[in-house]
Amino acid sequence: MVQVEVTRREQLRVQMVSDIKQHALAQLAEGGPEALSLNAIARAMRVSGPALYRYFASREDLLGELAADGYDSLGEALEAAADGADVRDDGVRGARLRAVAAAYRGWVLAHPHLYRLMFASRYGSGLVAPDRVVPASRRPMIPVLTAVAELGGPTSGRSLPDALVAQLKDWQSRSWSSTAPPETALLAVTAWTRLHGLLGLEIEGVFVSMGVDAGALVDAEMDQIIASTSA
Amino acid sequence: MVQVEVTRREQLRVQMVSDIKQHALAQLAEGGPEALSLNAIARAMRVSGPALYRYFASREDLLGELAADGYDSLGEALEAAADGADVRDDGVRGARLRAVAAAYRGWVLAHPHLYRLMFASRYGSGLVAPDRVVPASRRPMIPVLTAVAELGGPTSGRSLPDALVAQLKDWQSRSWSSTAPPETALLAVTAWTRLHGLLGLEIEGVFVSMGVDAGALVDAEMDQIIASTSA
Repeated sequence: MVQVEVTRREQLRVQMVSDIKQHALAQLAEGGPEALSLNAIARAMRVSGPALYRYFASREDLLGELAADGYDSLGEALEAAADGADVRDDGVRGARLRAVAAAYRGWVLAHPHLYRLMFASRYGSGLVAPDRVVPASRRPMIPVLTAVAELGGPTSGRSLPDALVAQLKDWQSRSWSSTAPPETALLAVTAWTRLHGLLGLEIEGVFVSMGVDAGALVDAEMDQIIASTSA
Repeated sequence: MVQVEVTRREQLRVQMVSDIKQHALAQLAEGGPEALSLNAIARAMRVSGPALYRYFASREDLLGELAADGYDSLGEALEAAADGADVRDDGVRGARLRAVAAAYRGWVLAHPHLYRLMFASRYGSGLVAPDRVVPASRRPMIPVLTAVAELGGPTSGRSLPDALVAQLKDWQSRSWSSTAPPETALLAVTAWTRLHGLLGLEIEGVFVSMGVDAGALVDAEMDQIIASTSA
């Protein structure tokens, strides 16, 4: 009986947390992090403020948790895209990188407020709830990095500064279990930062006001990366 | 006498607007757009709410105005860097692009909250106060675009989709008075989006937690652009 009681309580807790997050996501989509209010969520859920604070100690904690959930969701979408594609589909090199980039863009366009929370606010950087946010934040990078690395190293043969080489090696040993050489690691990291640059501007409407198709810009950047490598 | 009265009133107005913006910038630096409150500014300035609302109808207007000021300030910094450098300093190609990129990074690191307001919020995209924000937002792009264009076109000879070529030409004719061919225009736009990708992530602390020097990543991206062009 005690076991059943605990299970019911745990079920209630899971359901409450899920409901709170749904309300929080709706508020975030409505007006960004500034629109999120624990008291407003409590009113919408018809529970007392103290009842809600049992699940999240502060709006900061809730925003950090939403950002971490966002990283997990984006990571899942990219992993699925990577798994579903080969490095060469129909004999064309770079098919996996294109598939991952397209999935990245699709996810960001579907979740602009969450993306902004993750990558353009202090809630996504691990200043808030670091134990949950930092590990989650690494997950979406991996499918991008891996899709670039399997294309082989850059063909240009530009040599990197020694300090950067050491930093990239150290980062790889801690966060990315890949034996890619530093030149490839750099290209992989820049593939990811280029996607962020384009998609971060796209969700603010920049390319609509320029009259330029953001999808074509993403394709062009991925083309450049693919063309600069040789497997 | 009437002339003098008008001038004094105008002086007062300019001073009030300047004071309001100083307080607003301090609030923005403290906690982002969500921290900005016209009533708090009025209290800090020891004026009534209605007195303050004569200058800015809403916090939205004030945030739009701050974003536009930010574009002007960034634009000025980049123009000064571009004017102070030659395309070849000490015989090295790309000196102007490097100088503009370094100035871009310096400005962003000095004004992270303002940069976030400009490029990662709805206040900077022209949804708010478009007449003021949209023209201002074009200004910082121009020195970056110009520094890339004078390096000549990309050497790779990749052909662009017809639709993208048409979009780039149309955008150039409206916003960037340059005769650069579409391939060069694309490279220039991506130079700008790559800077945004790197610097937007840098101000969130991403490269500190990766242990990688963001300045070296910026250099590497500019190197790639310079190496891919021929003047």
